[in-house]
Amino acid sequence: MNPINVIKVGGGVVEDAAALSRLLSDFAVLPGAKVLVHGGGRSATRMAERLGVETRMVGGRRITDAAMLDIVTMVYGGLVNKQVVAGLQQQGLNAVGLTGADMNIIRSHRRPLRDGIDYGWVGDVDHVDNNALRRLIDDGFVPVIAPLTHDGQGHILNTNADTIASEVACALARDCDVTLTFCFEKRGVLRDADDESSAISVIDASAFQRLQAEGIVSGGMIPKLENAFAALRRGVREVVITRADHLDGEGGTRIVASV
Amino acid sequence: MNPINVIKVGGGVVEDAAALSRLLSDFAVLPGAKVLVHGGGRSATRMAERLGVETRMVGGRRITDAAMLDIVTMVYGGLVNKQVVAGLQQQGLNAVGLTGADMNIIRSHRRPLRDGIDYGWVGDVDHVDNNALRRLIDDGFVPVIAPLTHDGQGHILNTNADTIASEVACALARDCDVTLTFCFEKRGVLRDADDESSAISVIDASAFQRLQAEGIVSGGMIPKLENAFAALRRGVREVVITRADHLDGEGGTRIVASV
Repeated sequence: MNPINVIKVGGGVVEDAAALSRLLSDFAVLPGAKVLVHGGGRSATRMAERLGVETRMVGGRRITDAAMLDIVTMVYGGLVNKQVVAGLQQQGLNAVGLTGADMNIIRSHRRPLRDGIDYGWVGDVDHVDNNALRRLIDDGFVPVIAPLTHDGQGHILNTNADTIASEVACALARDCDVTLTFCFEKRGVLRDADDESSAISVIDASAFQRLQAEGIVSGGMIPKLENAFAALRRGVREVVITRADHLDGEGGTRIVASV
Repeated sequence: MNPINVIKVGGGVVEDAAALSRLLSDFAVLPGAKVLVHGGGRSATRMAERLGVETRMVGGRRITDAAMLDIVTMVYGGLVNKQVVAGLQQQGLNAVGLTGADMNIIRSHRRPLRDGIDYGWVGDVDHVDNNALRRLIDDGFVPVIAPLTHDGQGHILNTNADTIASEVACALARDCDVTLTFCFEKRGVLRDADDESSAISVIDASAFQRLQAEGIVSGGMIPKLENAFAALRRGVREVVITRADHLDGEGGTRIVASV
């Protein structure tokens, strides 16, 4: 099966000129087929502030009313996506920026009320068109995906970038050998939160149980790893958690079904 | 040769919900292969106002400093483009939103000083990749192009939407039978500026001379028609000037090399 790297980078990286520049050169030299999924939440929050639109978050998720939907559509689909695409073109990669609406690659439905919370124009993914993505990749293009989807009824919906990355990776895993890499601010899953060199190199399902029992993995890292194992169950070969300046995963944490 | 319709719609249409909705349904039922090029200047100006960024125009062209470039990248590439794409998906058209950076379809260079005027991050088109566009069209996709290009050096550049439409039409005309339609606020080239039913149905080169001599065609319509004839010389079969609510060109003005 064809190997494909799906890389998710958060807003913190794409919004900082120096970090973005480094990311683009590192991404460009990664061998083989690849897809980049980006966030942009901090830029959206900053733009909302400038426009006098209140940012409301519940459990780390953005409440997306009509004004906020316009902002994320502009910032994720326009500003961030096009800067990344132009930057990759400069690196000689034939990037194509996409939201879920483009080529109908990611369909979603508006999230119903959850625990009485109306998230607004937020989309939960129904379907990723892996054939359309595969055709682009096979033709030598590098998809750069913004965290926006659509409902087929004319509405753009705001969708979490980690979710997009997972869904895209799982869809591509139907007929490709997919490595899914999440870049975050630490080198990986650390044994000692204060020591960047303490990243655990490999975690499988039984190690995950043990690390939780020992209290080494806790808090926000638990759902992150649960999502990683869910992706593995859906066919992704390996999930890597690393820092954006170590895109190749070197020194990061590999999550695998079993060692 | 394959017929292709290249349609340019201005900001006034894509920025008005009712006009946009009508445009999308009319565009969806146009037979055959098609490309939509959109503007968005009024939205950009409004967004600039909200952000406290001054809009400066010289001869109808926007001076694009770094702050304005971010705004047009957001508004054209994000907000307007994605709303159009999602709306066309709703109509059952498999639209894909593109700037010139995406798939490297439109390369440009930053405009040098002209008469001492620095237009800023404005791009003059060097090359349109008609093969990439053709491949998308042949695969059943409908390109929706925002008025942004790139220089291959990592910079997005602001490029006039009429120019994009002409350049795309001329590039496709290398191996397709292209009709280029400009939608504007009037039904066509009017004999009587106050009478929308007075559109001249066909204008060829000799009629254009005559109409200028008679003073029927004057002012801003002259460069518009000169651009139309330039497109014809570069292989476009027909240029149509019509109103957005008459996308099929019915009742509008057809510009042809000779009758």
